[in-house]
Amino acid sequence: MANCLVAQSGGPTSVINATLAGIVKANQLNPIYHTVYGGLNGIEGILEERLVDLTRMSEDENRILRQTPSSALGSCRYKLKRDNLADFEKLMAVLDKYDIETMFYIGGNDSMDTVDALSEYAAKNKIKNHRFVGCPKTVDNDLEVTDHCPGFASAAKFIASTARQTWLDVNVYTREEVFILETMGRDAGWLAASACLSGIVDLLILPEKPFDKGVFLAEVKKCVEAKNKCYIVVSEGARYEDGTYLAAAEAKNDGFAHAVLGGAGSAVKNLILESKVAKRAKVQDLSTAQRCFALTQSLVDVEESFKLGMSAHMRSADKSFTGEMVAIVRKEGEVYDVNYIATKASNVANFVKHFPDKWIKPNYAGIKDEAIAYLKPLIQGAPVVLYKDGLPAFVKPYYMK
Amino acid sequence: MANCLVAQSGGPTSVINATLAGIVKANQLNPIYHTVYGGLNGIEGILEERLVDLTRMSEDENRILRQTPSSALGSCRYKLKRDNLADFEKLMAVLDKYDIETMFYIGGNDSMDTVDALSEYAAKNKIKNHRFVGCPKTVDNDLEVTDHCPGFASAAKFIASTARQTWLDVNVYTREEVFILETMGRDAGWLAASACLSGIVDLLILPEKPFDKGVFLAEVKKCVEAKNKCYIVVSEGARYEDGTYLAAAEAKNDGFAHAVLGGAGSAVKNLILESKVAKRAKVQDLSTAQRCFALTQSLVDVEESFKLGMSAHMRSADKSFTGEMVAIVRKEGEVYDVNYIATKASNVANFVKHFPDKWIKPNYAGIKDEAIAYLKPLIQGAPVVLYKDGLPAFVKPYYMK
Repeated sequence: MANCLVAQSGGPTSVINATLAGIVKANQLNPIYHTVYGGLNGIEGILEERLVDLTRMSEDENRILRQTPSSALGSCRYKLKRDNLADFEKLMAVLDKYDIETMFYIGGNDSMDTVDALSEYAAKNKIKNHRFVGCPKTVDNDLEVTDHCPGFASAAKFIASTARQTWLDVNVYTREEVFILETMGRDAGWLAASACLSGIVDLLILPEKPFDKGVFLAEVKKCVEAKNKCYIVVSEGARYEDGTYLAAAEAKNDGFAHAVLGGAGSAVKNLILESKVAKRAKVQDLSTAQRCFALTQSLVDVEESFKLGMSAHMRSADKSFTGEMVAIVRKEGEVYDVNYIATKASNVANFVKHFPDKWIKPNYAGIKDEAIAYLKPLIQGAPVVLYKDGLPAFVKPYYMK
Repeated sequence: MANCLVAQSGGPTSVINATLAGIVKANQLNPIYHTVYGGLNGIEGILEERLVDLTRMSEDENRILRQTPSSALGSCRYKLKRDNLADFEKLMAVLDKYDIETMFYIGGNDSMDTVDALSEYAAKNKIKNHRFVGCPKTVDNDLEVTDHCPGFASAAKFIASTARQTWLDVNVYTREEVFILETMGRDAGWLAASACLSGIVDLLILPEKPFDKGVFLAEVKKCVEAKNKCYIVVSEGARYEDGTYLAAAEAKNDGFAHAVLGGAGSAVKNLILESKVAKRAKVQDLSTAQRCFALTQSLVDVEESFKLGMSAHMRSADKSFTGEMVAIVRKEGEVYDVNYIATKASNVANFVKHFPDKWIKPNYAGIKDEAIAYLKPLIQGAPVVLYKDGLPAFVKPYYMK
């Protein structure tokens, strides 16, 4: 009986370990693999044979793993290059040595490219004893085919609830206030857009629409004049028509490019203060916390992530299943429900799914009802959190053991 | 039968409305006042007679109010000056007009000074029909007499859990990483210190200890050399021996004081990068979210805050009760428990309770076990959160109705 291997790659999310937990649990329910190995720090650690045995993980640990944010197996940014044959050979040798039939890779765009490249290499070289399966994850929600990406909904929920709560804070004084919330999203505006679930966003700046300073500042002015307050959400990836990021342009204009400026939020603040459309502006950059704040996971997100892991494992019983990624398709109908499918990893690798143009209101006015209808079901429900000493219980990362 | 008035002042917290809910509920259990008025935007709104009637608040609204962050009545930074007699006269006239016997003021240092000043003015002018009672709140935890301040524990819990979660994120890559978490606390280091509840803080910079750049950078170097990672927590109030704030000094040194630099976190990052003790450093400033993230309230905090409101109301049945603030005293013994007491507002007004020197480890190494023993009971328990559409349900602020 052969073994399997699970590894994680790219930026972590607050539910990435739920997918790992799903694979481990599926093999306990139907042990089609003798040993479930965890590969530490993605491809990087696998090449160095840094593996741990997860086969007999207790239900208690599995439960806590699901609420532990960030990659418990560690991550890497290492990308397998198709022309670096030495890496491919080395990897196959490791898989041979540990008799690993299936390698599950949990990650985003780049990771799906790795899954695709490895299965392609195996096919070309008539390697039949190693198969490669992808499981999606990314807070950015920018993967093709899948209706949405594990990790996105929990980040969206954290962003929307932080927006609503900071909005309550910003409003307590009678004085004029502009508040700017900066979210992640270098290329796609899904995270910034999700702040609109809070129902309080006045102006939204997405990377999908070229930033027009004049139009934007006029909207800020209008808003401040109308109600003495303006709540703005900006994606870190916001950029001008020529592609320059807001923050980068600010640095250049002010002649101190060496300074640590912060991101798009600070840039928007500076534009507002310099143009004098408002006298006060405050920035909150949600930074790292938005992708790892698992204490407020979406129940839908954590359960779907777990089931994607289960689905990947179960499908891999089919000896022809390789070069595929498991994914979510939303069912038609009033009540939210999904189907779990598989798609070629090549359909996902190296594409970016942008926030749809048709869902964006003009003049930075936020997102349309169709977008809210898409987003709302994803953030529903809250898992029962297991605590230890007043803080959520977490599994100690396997790369630290 | 006379009436009472409740108002809120200063920076909001995530449990400040629980105290308001406690006062309203106490009057429903024992209606010693005919009407419970809410004064909007503190003293500022009371002087303008902006009052709402909260007497018959439903249990449902009361329950949701307890989980609604930030001052639902609005706040102000307006300080009654003792020599501004016009304000005192105007205020007494409003209290006369609405037959308000007792005014409850929920706030920090300045608010307790207001309570003291008003009761002093009443005594001097033989005004017997108006009394003034303070209820403490402040995320800074820097009020005297009371063992701790409502609002602090929930902020501490948010900070400690964010620290632990971002630490998990920071560790996933094998590369060198320095992470800097900035917390509030202009004068007192309680919030920054509370991050140590996470058990993962390597270095802690408090405002209570003058910052020594050389010693600090040597510690960062040691830490990075030992484990390739360094997790730093810094209070916004961190300052040099001469009193200069870290952020301010940085702005001056680099000759671009006009730039928006961010705070102490960015300053620490710049020091580290310039000195080359590490190659990479990332900052997360918890900013506004830390004082209003009610989705992860401490149960101890929200319940104590509610009870302080109840206690203030109940004690005010005594016609001689004025110029006092209700407070918490911790009982001796192994099991955490508290007594509710009252103290003269003048014992609290205009003092700052610093994080004790004896609890600080040398060389930025964090806090001692006695400090952890003090902090840990405060963050215990999580209230059942009521949700609406996937986000926590909140009461619409009364100043918006």
